[in-house]
Amino acid sequence: MGKGEDTRRRIIERAAALFNQRGFEGTALSDLMEATKLRKGGIYRHFDSKEELATEAFDYAWEAARQARHEGLSEIPNAVERLKGFVKNFVEVRPPVPGGCPLMNTAIEADDGNIVLRAHAREALRSWREFIEATVAAGKERGEIRVKAHGEETATMLIAGLEGALMMSRLAHSDQPLRTMQIHLNEYLEKNLRKSEPASS
Amino acid sequence: MGKGEDTRRRIIERAAALFNQRGFEGTALSDLMEATKLRKGGIYRHFDSKEELATEAFDYAWEAARQARHEGLSEIPNAVERLKGFVKNFVEVRPPVPGGCPLMNTAIEADDGNIVLRAHAREALRSWREFIEATVAAGKERGEIRVKAHGEETATMLIAGLEGALMMSRLAHSDQPLRTMQIHLNEYLEKNLRKSEPASS
Repeated sequence: MGKGEDTRRRIIERAAALFNQRGFEGTALSDLMEATKLRKGGIYRHFDSKEELATEAFDYAWEAARQARHEGLSEIPNAVERLKGFVKNFVEVRPPVPGGCPLMNTAIEADDGNIVLRAHAREALRSWREFIEATVAAGKERGEIRVKAHGEETATMLIAGLEGALMMSRLAHSDQPLRTMQIHLNEYLEKNLRKSEPASS
Repeated sequence: MGKGEDTRRRIIERAAALFNQRGFEGTALSDLMEATKLRKGGIYRHFDSKEELATEAFDYAWEAARQARHEGLSEIPNAVERLKGFVKNFVEVRPPVPGGCPLMNTAIEADDGNIVLRAHAREALRSWREFIEATVAAGKERGEIRVKAHGEETATMLIAGLEGALMMSRLAHSDQPLRTMQIHLNEYLEKNLRKSEPASS
């Protein structure tokens, strides 16, 4: 039982790297067999289908990316600083599963394709939005963020800006787009969210 | 000869829709045969490989997207208004080849994969940057855009913002992310690029 769980976990880890780099369609059973050193039967004893393995691999890769991007954030009490810390992590920390952002990779491949994978990508996007909106709401409660600031808009700006810049940086093999976006988003957060000190208003 | 060219063109058109929706790896020869009503030999008489067909299909889809996004722009003389027109087209006009932005689709699939496809995606990104940077430079020449405005930064903001928002809109089946980004980028262009009238300074 323990050994079966270990094997299952190891298959998911290896598969996550393949799917995130090559995509669902670009990952063949032979690739999975080579990466896991298992035969077909050894893999499909643990999963009903390639789709089931791919969704578990996506959830694993997304959780690993989420943890990397949230590293140290709980120690930043101020909501504006915490969002800037998130942007900084996204730009500077490479998630452990290679191949770029699992959400963007899966969203782009599955938007015209696999329905189950797309549902997992949508759930990932929803949870990312929720983190940003909840951080904005908590910042308002504590008087760190303007009451008029818009959590939903902030989430769209951060997610779209970072994902688009990551696409450009990966394609051009340059961190310049990500760095440019970081500066812009920090300014955006300062100008649109940060509540001025009473003394200066 | 004329008929051969017609057939070649028709294969590229049909293949472009398939590759843009399903990806290079997700498009099988059987899909291409069904879409073109040709046998394997009928397709590969015109192309040396699936890769050659995919790169021609990418160039075709990218040119079609470019034309849709540039619709009417040459009639807008002011550089800031022209960039806002570009943003508007990107948000409102769906390119004729279905499946989303060919650049983003190919960039995401090929960043860890096919080298030839990646080279075509990089060239597309370069030409897109060039259009924005040249528009900013011309606007400076004509005194419409501040001399201190930064063309490279403007290109990064527009491309990353629009592509990221498109990914979110397609995944969530909502145009809200694109609409939010349009408002933000219009403000960005007004604040960072538009030269104030001498009377108001």
